[in-house]
Amino acid sequence: MRNLDEETITQAVLARHADMPNGRMKEIMTSLVQHLHAFAREVHLTEAEWAEGIKFLTEVGHTCTSSRQEFILLSDTLGLSTLVTAQNHKKPRGCTEATVFGPFYVDDAPEYELGADVANGMTGEPCYVSGKVKSVTGEAVPNARLEVWQADSEGFYDVQQAGLDGHQGRGTLTADERGGFHFKSIVAECYPIPHDGPVGRMLDAMGRHPWRPAHLHFMISAPGFETLITHVFREGGEYLDSDAVFGVRSSLIGDWVRHEAGTAPDGTSSATPFYTLDFDFILNPAPAAPAPSRR
Amino acid sequence: MRNLDEETITQAVLARHADMPNGRMKEIMTSLVQHLHAFAREVHLTEAEWAEGIKFLTEVGHTCTSSRQEFILLSDTLGLSTLVTAQNHKKPRGCTEATVFGPFYVDDAPEYELGADVANGMTGEPCYVSGKVKSVTGEAVPNARLEVWQADSEGFYDVQQAGLDGHQGRGTLTADERGGFHFKSIVAECYPIPHDGPVGRMLDAMGRHPWRPAHLHFMISAPGFETLITHVFREGGEYLDSDAVFGVRSSLIGDWVRHEAGTAPDGTSSATPFYTLDFDFILNPAPAAPAPSRR
Repeated sequence: MRNLDEETITQAVLARHADMPNGRMKEIMTSLVQHLHAFAREVHLTEAEWAEGIKFLTEVGHTCTSSRQEFILLSDTLGLSTLVTAQNHKKPRGCTEATVFGPFYVDDAPEYELGADVANGMTGEPCYVSGKVKSVTGEAVPNARLEVWQADSEGFYDVQQAGLDGHQGRGTLTADERGGFHFKSIVAECYPIPHDGPVGRMLDAMGRHPWRPAHLHFMISAPGFETLITHVFREGGEYLDSDAVFGVRSSLIGDWVRHEAGTAPDGTSSATPFYTLDFDFILNPAPAAPAPSRR
Repeated sequence: MRNLDEETITQAVLARHADMPNGRMKEIMTSLVQHLHAFAREVHLTEAEWAEGIKFLTEVGHTCTSSRQEFILLSDTLGLSTLVTAQNHKKPRGCTEATVFGPFYVDDAPEYELGADVANGMTGEPCYVSGKVKSVTGEAVPNARLEVWQADSEGFYDVQQAGLDGHQGRGTLTADERGGFHFKSIVAECYPIPHDGPVGRMLDAMGRHPWRPAHLHFMISAPGFETLITHVFREGGEYLDSDAVFGVRSSLIGDWVRHEAGTAPDGTSSATPFYTLDFDFILNPAPAAPAPSRR
């Protein structure tokens, strides 16, 4: 422990961790230290580069506020979020795929009746969304809870707008007995992730753009099923092949249909063009509860 | 790019980096993404653990202020700082070893004459420090610039004390023509790294203590030589074998001699016991400048 060098330091740190009380933490920290050190050795990290890294991480931390999570953006743009989502949601064939959660969910979105307008004043072209929540065998999942959220036509979520009073472009709905749901919102548009901070500067230095293809977020939960966190993307939209956060799945691309002014799905007369999206979600059964132990 | 899973995501991220304009950045980001992903796969990181990681890094960032650098503490406690220092300062046999920089250096420490008291009112037992700055062939290095810094008897650096006006326990001195230097300070004591933040909680959860063995920091620079950043530790002190930041080198342990009250090295009469430390530093020649290019 008194004569460490760039080779022996790794074993010295791991030796300090030999008696770690939490076995899972020991497993995680052992792998983390080994990969962190292997990275620094592999690229022969210089002291100036290390100092740049410390400065960058500090700026990422200082950019995090109650309404902005720059570390999630960093994880998203480096593909870590997609990796963690994928390895924790291996689903049977036929189930709707999960994708990244993103940093713009809030847990107190207003409850709406089916058919309501969750845009709540958010600017954009009207869009009528409908679909069914089903099991993998095709049966309706009754009364699933759906949380939806999205950005406005300029690419901003409500939480990114200073001084906005109340929620816009997000809501909680309950599907009916037959699994059906429908609501009104605005059509999703592509937008850049927040890129006025350190993650934006990182993307810029790497020659990468910050854009995400147009999408609508869903989180769907029902008793007996794994909660599904996913998006629905727009067929034919830009950036489907270069999503800044690696979230696109072919199976999640929906057909958003544009209609000229006329009668909308809710029976009202729309003076402007509008969109419709019909998309079904197939939930994965939750793992069976372990059998009661005999001991 | 539309059907990623936990295996294909890594190549998808690297493919996005194929045209990165900065070659060195590409090399670093390629290795970083590979190791970050390999870590998450190896431990099968769960979404809850990922979220804990995001929360932890955010707290580390929020703990960083103009006078506290929690990310450096994190790097230090995980051994990364020692690794980076070691691989960037491979020195010829006989040169004084480098060790971690630490988070408590400031670049505007006051200039002192040789013999001055750099403690400047900092509490602790008096200590008279002297030594020579030499080349590896034993010749004096004249007029080297020495920056020294240390904690007080309670383990706090001046920058950790709210409301302290001016510097204590740090200073800049210039060695004489024969490489000699001497100054007065206080004796170094062991102390815990700041452990009231997320890094302290991490160490606690891992069953690790936050203590560092007693040491005095030096940064020594002279034209024609590599700048030396190092510590001198106290022979016989606690934590030499379990330094929280992995900084100890056997060759950097000095003999701090305790003396009863009496005549001090500066000729004054000390009414209290005092210490002396005599330690020489051997500088590494700077790399020769590259030959001028013909192009």
